[in-house]
Amino acid sequence: MAQKVTIATVARQAGVSRQTVSNVIHTPEIVREETRERVRAAITALGYRASQAARQMRTGRSQLIAVRIEPTRDGINGSVLDRFLHGLTEAAGEAGYRVMLYTATDAANEIATYDDLLGAYDLDAFVLTGTDHGDVRTAWLAERKVPFVTFGRSWDAPERYPWVDVDGAAGTAAATAHLVTQGHQRIAFIGWPAGSGVGDNRRAGWASAVSATGVDPAELNRETPDGITQGEEVARQLLELKLPPTALVCASDSLALGALQAVRDRGAAVAVTGFDDTPVAQAIGLTSVSQPLAQAAASCVDLLAAVLDGGGVDGAGDPGGGPAQVLLTPSLVVRQSG
Amino acid sequence: MAQKVTIATVARQAGVSRQTVSNVIHTPEIVREETRERVRAAITALGYRASQAARQMRTGRSQLIAVRIEPTRDGINGSVLDRFLHGLTEAAGEAGYRVMLYTATDAANEIATYDDLLGAYDLDAFVLTGTDHGDVRTAWLAERKVPFVTFGRSWDAPERYPWVDVDGAAGTAAATAHLVTQGHQRIAFIGWPAGSGVGDNRRAGWASAVSATGVDPAELNRETPDGITQGEEVARQLLELKLPPTALVCASDSLALGALQAVRDRGAAVAVTGFDDTPVAQAIGLTSVSQPLAQAAASCVDLLAAVLDGGGVDGAGDPGGGPAQVLLTPSLVVRQSG
Repeated sequence: MAQKVTIATVARQAGVSRQTVSNVIHTPEIVREETRERVRAAITALGYRASQAARQMRTGRSQLIAVRIEPTRDGINGSVLDRFLHGLTEAAGEAGYRVMLYTATDAANEIATYDDLLGAYDLDAFVLTGTDHGDVRTAWLAERKVPFVTFGRSWDAPERYPWVDVDGAAGTAAATAHLVTQGHQRIAFIGWPAGSGVGDNRRAGWASAVSATGVDPAELNRETPDGITQGEEVARQLLELKLPPTALVCASDSLALGALQAVRDRGAAVAVTGFDDTPVAQAIGLTSVSQPLAQAAASCVDLLAAVLDGGGVDGAGDPGGGPAQVLLTPSLVVRQSG
Repeated sequence: MAQKVTIATVARQAGVSRQTVSNVIHTPEIVREETRERVRAAITALGYRASQAARQMRTGRSQLIAVRIEPTRDGINGSVLDRFLHGLTEAAGEAGYRVMLYTATDAANEIATYDDLLGAYDLDAFVLTGTDHGDVRTAWLAERKVPFVTFGRSWDAPERYPWVDVDGAAGTAAATAHLVTQGHQRIAFIGWPAGSGVGDNRRAGWASAVSATGVDPAELNRETPDGITQGEEVARQLLELKLPPTALVCASDSLALGALQAVRDRGAAVAVTGFDDTPVAQAIGLTSVSQPLAQAAASCVDLLAAVLDGGGVDGAGDPGGGPAQVLLTPSLVVRQSG
């Protein structure tokens, strides 16, 4: 088993209490010289590093934040949250925090996991991903005054909790506007069934950009669950219209990959754009909307640090005037497909 | 700030020591009835959940294991360690462990990070990734009796530490044998510069399968750093040979993606295979070698649990007869490219 040197190890070795060890580190003047020497000898002999442990003792914090990791379901879209996680771990590390992972099958299971984690570890805060309407997780954490920030806005109460999000509507609007400048007039949208915060938002950006050209978007709006075959099927149907679209704006790279396949099979010169700028988009030359994920992760850590240092109420981070929200703008990466 | 209910919270509320709370939970018969009632009342009032915290008290373990997360460098190959991480978090969760992440820029920095982490958190063990010759991390941990397992074998001392690895040579041998059955006789290899454990292993599988057909592999062996443009450049040179290869076995999907580009540009009917079966391979129809990553992650957790429960020496896990090693066999996923 490991020989980990902690405050407890030092205390044992010196034959004193943990509190005495802490006193020697932080307020040595109140410790008797003989005891002080003994504790310092133990610290040196054991190679005890006070740094973060000491900081924890001072602040009463673990410097640990927890974030969920999704099951690997879709190899294409999954890369977005993975990239966010890389950014989060790096940004957290720079701010003196560590990231702990957990899995959860649904919201209820995730809440049960919060309960377990909070009972077992001194967690400072949670980073939540995958927000949507009717999110029960945020209320649960806020009720218990557990600090958190969500990557994804609080769709039902945008000003209630601290969050960081990427402006999906701005992304699809930029893709659509780009296609308009390329001369396209019939621009369809292939997105997810209405009702999800993220999906409706991405659809809204396309609809408003199409409306701005004087065209009614309703006719070329399509809904389908996410997936390559789903994108291919819906694109095929669109291309069989009497007046088919000349461009397809898709809510994900998965849908766009399927749409591209349908376009190629038909030998049609139809533009396709995706969303998330995944490695697959880069590999196949797909124009796609890129989320600033490293920046989003860093903003999450910034907001959390403000909540923790500012002692915001309700776990909502209120360092003056209300919880903070950060909405980032994505960028369009233009490639051969559109 | 969070109101976390821990043993300490219960102890404070009941006006007793942590040890007394633990006694009430585990050996209530030794606690005076009046005290027992007071502690139980505090446990109920605070909603304290003994589950994992209690387990920690009994075992003296944190149930926390740490693993490094790489910077997002290459969107294609990076997905392998991400998928491993998903599997590790899930398998660890099922075994009652949580995963903590850290980043590191190089081996020396990673060792400094071990030191920090061990000083600040009661970590049970580490999972190391990215093993190679001359790995200084394993010796450092073993010296300090910190339990660990590596994903990737200990290249210099295969029987010294516990590890889980995927048989890369078996993977490239399977890809090559498949091409041979397709009638290919001139099968080239595009891999990384000699000297890396993983790279040499993948090259060896191709070389042995080619040798088995009576052909000397040396002439069609190529070395290049990893990358799409590098794969394209080397493939282009191979296709310009007087007797060009009819098939290209590549050490990664990145190299294979570049090689495919060169093949298409030349309009040649040359087969290409990759390694890692990334989402990109799936998207573009690339035949590739698939690593059983979920199984590898689960095996890592199994080995760690054996080390921790068996109390193996040297952090090396010696539950009887020496540290355990697990070598898994990858599978070939055949698609249009080869």
